[in-house]
Amino acid sequence: MVESFTDRRGQVHSFGDAVEEQRVRADDRGHVFHSWSAQARINPLPIAAGKSSTFWDYEGNAYLDFSSQLVNLNLGHQHPDLVRAIQEQAGRLTTIQPSMANDVRGELARRIAEVAPGDLNKVFFTNGGADANEYAVRMARQATGRRKVLSMYRSYHGGTATAISLTGDPRRWANEPSDSSVAHFFGPYLYRSAFHATTQAEESQRALEHLENVILLEGASTIAAIIIETIVGTNGVLVPPPGYLPGVRMLCDKYGIIYIADEVMVGFGRVGEWFAVNSFDVVPDLITFAKGVNSGYVPLGGVVISDRISSFFDDVAFPGGLTYSGHPLACAAGVATFEVFERDGILERVRDLGARVIEPTIRGWMEKHASLGEVRGSGLFWALELVRSTETREPLVPFNAAGTEAKPMAEIASACKAAGLWPFIHFNRVHIAPPLVISEDELRRGLDIIDEALTVADSFAVQE
Amino acid sequence: MVESFTDRRGQVHSFGDAVEEQRVRADDRGHVFHSWSAQARINPLPIAAGKSSTFWDYEGNAYLDFSSQLVNLNLGHQHPDLVRAIQEQAGRLTTIQPSMANDVRGELARRIAEVAPGDLNKVFFTNGGADANEYAVRMARQATGRRKVLSMYRSYHGGTATAISLTGDPRRWANEPSDSSVAHFFGPYLYRSAFHATTQAEESQRALEHLENVILLEGASTIAAIIIETIVGTNGVLVPPPGYLPGVRMLCDKYGIIYIADEVMVGFGRVGEWFAVNSFDVVPDLITFAKGVNSGYVPLGGVVISDRISSFFDDVAFPGGLTYSGHPLACAAGVATFEVFERDGILERVRDLGARVIEPTIRGWMEKHASLGEVRGSGLFWALELVRSTETREPLVPFNAAGTEAKPMAEIASACKAAGLWPFIHFNRVHIAPPLVISEDELRRGLDIIDEALTVADSFAVQE
Ligand SMILES: Cc1ncc(COP(=O)(O)O)c(C=O)c1O
Ligand SMILES: Cc1ncc(COP(=O)(O)O)c(C=O)c1O
Repeated sequence: MVESFTDRRGQVHSFGDAVEEQRVRADDRGHVFHSWSAQARINPLPIAAGKSSTFWDYEGNAYLDFSSQLVNLNLGHQHPDLVRAIQEQAGRLTTIQPSMANDVRGELARRIAEVAPGDLNKVFFTNGGADANEYAVRMARQATGRRKVLSMYRSYHGGTATAISLTGDPRRWANEPSDSSVAHFFGPYLYRSAFHATTQAEESQRALEHLENVILLEGASTIAAIIIETIVGTNGVLVPPPGYLPGVRMLCDKYGIIYIADEVMVGFGRVGEWFAVNSFDVVPDLITFAKGVNSGYVPLGGVVISDRISSFFDDVAFPGGLTYSGHPLACAAGVATFEVFERDGILERVRDLGARVIEPTIRGWMEKHASLGEVRGSGLFWALELVRSTETREPLVPFNAAGTEAKPMAEIASACKAAGLWPFIHFNRVHIAPPLVISEDELRRGLDIIDEALTVADSFAVQE
Repeated sequence: MVESFTDRRGQVHSFGDAVEEQRVRADDRGHVFHSWSAQARINPLPIAAGKSSTFWDYEGNAYLDFSSQLVNLNLGHQHPDLVRAIQEQAGRLTTIQPSMANDVRGELARRIAEVAPGDLNKVFFTNGGADANEYAVRMARQATGRRKVLSMYRSYHGGTATAISLTGDPRRWANEPSDSSVAHFFGPYLYRSAFHATTQAEESQRALEHLENVILLEGASTIAAIIIETIVGTNGVLVPPPGYLPGVRMLCDKYGIIYIADEVMVGFGRVGEWFAVNSFDVVPDLITFAKGVNSGYVPLGGVVISDRISSFFDDVAFPGGLTYSGHPLACAAGVATFEVFERDGILERVRDLGARVIEPTIRGWMEKHASLGEVRGSGLFWALELVRSTETREPLVPFNAAGTEAKPMAEIASACKAAGLWPFIHFNRVHIAPPLVISEDELRRGLDIIDEALTVADSFAVQE
């Protein structure tokens, strides 16, 4: 597909250009400080080019992108419509301050409101997912006059102070003491039920009972908001059982609590809906988004706000803001995203590929892979949960494993990369999250690579 | 200059197109939730176009941008080199995840390290100023094992949880309780000295004595960092007196405290230096930046990190990160910024225009404007502090005035806008912060407009 790449000065290079690669590596190792890493223990791979579902390193190795970068690249690498929208907006009016009205800013806000459920009609734009959650929590605290926020164990909500406090995975630990007004509860996860449930119905009902207990014991009158990833993303592609989210909505209504849906990862088509809540028949008070809104082509996130909450701030100043709120360049890429989704029937193809290609294929693997404990997901968002034994369900590697403990997962990743696929791996799971524009052929080829890599996983499992 | 504007669909409109304007207003009022505002009390002005130091509303009114939007647009509206860099990068490789190495990401990090003082050699990229400060504080807390942070009254550090806690202006109030590990101290501000000083030397020495007292009483061993805007921006263009910042550096060394310089507003040329600390002969441990790094053409911020602190994270994972860290599109605009600064001698012209045009002009106003209490600043960054009486120094409007109390300042703003200048006004001050590419003619024209508007201010001052 791609045979050469262009540097910033417009010079064309062929793959294997070791001088170019060395230059990029030297700048990176000398001067770039990377997220979530011990800086001397990483060796970032220089990437030269990307196109649709594939990206290339400097040696010319092609990787089928089964993680859509950080599950943000919903329309794939270098989508021509998004690229054009950015180029045109850059030539028109690259930026203007948040206090002004701007055509693309307003158009994107309207488009989002149109596909958001219920009366979620206004949008506060941020730069990414973390600050979207920061400001959603702030709105809830202001509007209720309460302070506490409940969030799930096994969740990720971002890296800034409030967002990392909400987070229910180990990335929070090194950041404690965090916001003491956050309490964590258990969500539904039948495969590893915290409630000793054996059916989805039981899991749903018991998880709601547990949540109501937490509400009562934390003190309903102290709780501003409950924040939930509609489908838990990085921490396991945990799809809530029927009835769970409507039950959360009822508890929020009962106790006057704001329901915040974090759709930073699952919004904008990942599971074949504009917002994942739409398929669970539930209307939150606030929805946070980022990533898929413009595939991360320009940093953008935001909060979709119900009339009830936005009107609270009609006469009371909202005490939050940022220099780049509603950035026109970012919004232009967002408007183009809507146009592509509609023209190309993206939501429909996601549902189709998920149901027709992914689900039957990976369910079929249950028979032959001794390491495959459970598969779950929706649309183009699936998890393969790997275990040492399907009987005991002991994870293939321990929770939060690092170093040699994590070796089995590292070997699976290596097998995928060697075969030309860039996987998303977290703890004992392989996630499937390709760009939503992936062709059926590419999708099947990628699944074949993962199928093969699972034989590596099987070698670490107890052979029954 | 500009006679028409183009909408997102490529259609050309002439100014005064009421249908277009109405469409933009309707989307905005219906769907955009704005920063720091009571939503029903604002009436955002639709902006149709911008070029260099000027922008236009839909009626075709031109405004000389004396606030560089939010003091971010250092290279002005639609700078052709920045626009081209964005367009080319969009066509090449719009984005790639933070864990990869990327040519422009590495090049920008290296360029920043080259102009940063001392051994500040690595860059952690963020989306804006608030998260830059969040992560700088996190680095300091991790590296010292301490938690408390000292910051100044009369400061702004951003809107997210940690950043707003650091903030020493009224935007923090509605966000309390905030991070309880932040304590505020008074910085030097001779015109309203907190230390009863009468000379800059005395102010500097007493402010340092005060800071050391706060350190002692808060407990040096509990303090991770001191964060200071090198020149306090929004809260007054407060230029520290000679000796103050070196004194802060010495106190930090004495007590093992990390010195964080917030240069989100003053970095990248605003005062004629890459980093403002360079002109105060001081090397902080961390410098935070955003805005001017790429004029806000694409959201970008970051932390420049000393070897001592970055090496702490060589073998210990840094517990922070974000999806868009080191975004290539944003970094490409940053690299282009370096090229323009160097080719066009931006730093030199800022120093020249500040010293030769602004300073003598506005100092001359002291004689004729009864409302002008003090002028202060550097480069293309100045404040006119307005008072009811130069004798009592009573501010022209009370601290944090709103509504009718703030009327004098609102009238000054109206006078500026009516004359074709968009001013930066905060409390009882008018700031002068035009794009660094402003022509000498435009600068003089803008100063004339402000000169004239000050007659409005004078009418509220006690005539002596
Ligand atoms: C569910 C969820 N919320 C929030 C975030 C934070 O987004 P960002 O990295 O843009 O701050 C993420 C990022 O992965 C996420 O998956
Ligand atoms: C000194 C300073 N720090 C931090 C910030 C916050 O930057 P941002 O609005 O990009 O979050 C600002 C914004 O005005 C600022 O002036």
